[in-house]
Amino acid sequence: MSQTLSQATGRDIRLLCREQRWTGPTAGLALGYIQANLVIIPREWAFDFLLFCQRNPRACPILEVTDPGCAEPRRCAPGADLRTDLPRYRVYQQGKLVAEPGEITSWWREDLVAFLLGCSFSFERALLQTGLPVRHIECGCNVPMYRTNIPCASAGRLRGPMVVSMRPMKPQQALQAAHICERFPFAHGPPVHWGDPAVIGIADLSKPDYGDPVPLYPGEVPVFWACGVTPQAVIQESGVEFVITHKPGHMFVTDWRESDYYEIAETVANRREHLAN
Amino acid sequence: MSQTLSQATGRDIRLLCREQRWTGPTAGLALGYIQANLVIIPREWAFDFLLFCQRNPRACPILEVTDPGCAEPRRCAPGADLRTDLPRYRVYQQGKLVAEPGEITSWWREDLVAFLLGCSFSFERALLQTGLPVRHIECGCNVPMYRTNIPCASAGRLRGPMVVSMRPMKPQQALQAAHICERFPFAHGPPVHWGDPAVIGIADLSKPDYGDPVPLYPGEVPVFWACGVTPQAVIQESGVEFVITHKPGHMFVTDWRESDYYEIAETVANRREHLAN
Repeated sequence: MSQTLSQATGRDIRLLCREQRWTGPTAGLALGYIQANLVIIPREWAFDFLLFCQRNPRACPILEVTDPGCAEPRRCAPGADLRTDLPRYRVYQQGKLVAEPGEITSWWREDLVAFLLGCSFSFERALLQTGLPVRHIECGCNVPMYRTNIPCASAGRLRGPMVVSMRPMKPQQALQAAHICERFPFAHGPPVHWGDPAVIGIADLSKPDYGDPVPLYPGEVPVFWACGVTPQAVIQESGVEFVITHKPGHMFVTDWRESDYYEIAETVANRREHLAN
Repeated sequence: MSQTLSQATGRDIRLLCREQRWTGPTAGLALGYIQANLVIIPREWAFDFLLFCQRNPRACPILEVTDPGCAEPRRCAPGADLRTDLPRYRVYQQGKLVAEPGEITSWWREDLVAFLLGCSFSFERALLQTGLPVRHIECGCNVPMYRTNIPCASAGRLRGPMVVSMRPMKPQQALQAAHICERFPFAHGPPVHWGDPAVIGIADLSKPDYGDPVPLYPGEVPVFWACGVTPQAVIQESGVEFVITHKPGHMFVTDWRESDYYEIAETVANRREHLAN
């Protein structure tokens, strides 16, 4: 990736995607801008899914939800178009992946609702800046992710287990990481578990359900965070007839700065509209 | 009110309501337990309203949302029945108040969704404990509430202005109050404005749109908080054909303790289900 793109703005990246001049992962791009998971589902399922996010804020921290038929996220990226401004999408019908297009204009329908959910890129940057290890970045691979026996709170027709991501650390580092991540409720917050993986139903750390395995060094314990793959897994399993998501790692880059996170953390939405100026 | 009731639990109060042995306001009852505004609307409107709450967290801090047809708030009060466990309800059809019953069993429908929203009782207690004035409690009247020119973020078919409550304080006290209320995002959070009422579209403080006027003493400024009347006002104005709410001041008393507020504040929902034990 060009060094320039790490210094680009969220809008720069979105326009490159729109022109199909960037179709790769967004890790490391537009540093300092909050990136988001995308889930697009029909209006008929939108209440269930919004309620699911509300009840499972660790896995599904809501940044923004659009009105049905509206592809512009007016709060976190005014002027953006969610149909074209991500590098790569995934289209699911009846839970089956049917396409991985670079834009979804032809798939768009007036009854679709788009959800933008926080992603771990925000807190990983904070961990690295504090000198904490982020093993999959050291290894140049994807983060390992596992299905757990932790049930998500169900909502209407949506139910399923939490998916977690894992980063190995020494216990003292894990405490530091937990402290840091408390400040990122919009990016999955602090860990949900550390230590014995069997306690949360993970049989073998070397066989992640998604992503790549990473090594644990002597003295390290596995540290687990709620993961943005949870909603995709739940939605696919729950018989939703039509879903569009981003391709994993190919996120939507917002206009929001991580340095604004206190404000965003407080409301997980848009506080500004409530303040008299 | 009996002194005993101030020391009762949330469950005690709910059972008294269920037996119609308590039909009055809940201010001062079950001290330390979080109380909630109630909004019950048809499933057909539930996505719009949940999205409205999501986008307007100051006015509409969500404590819990039930699944359609489910009258039990399983998170904040397991075993409770929202059809009987409040002292007094209001039933609206086409925006018009048609009944003020003591229970709503005969009005219940399988497509109804119940929303429990945070209320200012929580932070008023904290203000009093810090020695700050809460004028309407000193005066023994209702808090004054005003429609403002602050637009709520609209959601689908729902739109309208924010309603605010007002408490007079000296500027230094207002700063203290803002600091305290930062810790109560589930109870409307810090003030949205203080000082000149005209800035937020209030022409005459002595003529509140809801509740009772209260005096300002020399050196005091009016301090305004987002108010739980906002959603009721918006819903009634937006043509929802059927809505049930609590009667103002006659709240639902949960099992949640104010002393747990840090946990509740972080998630505004139920964090416990996400923690491995």
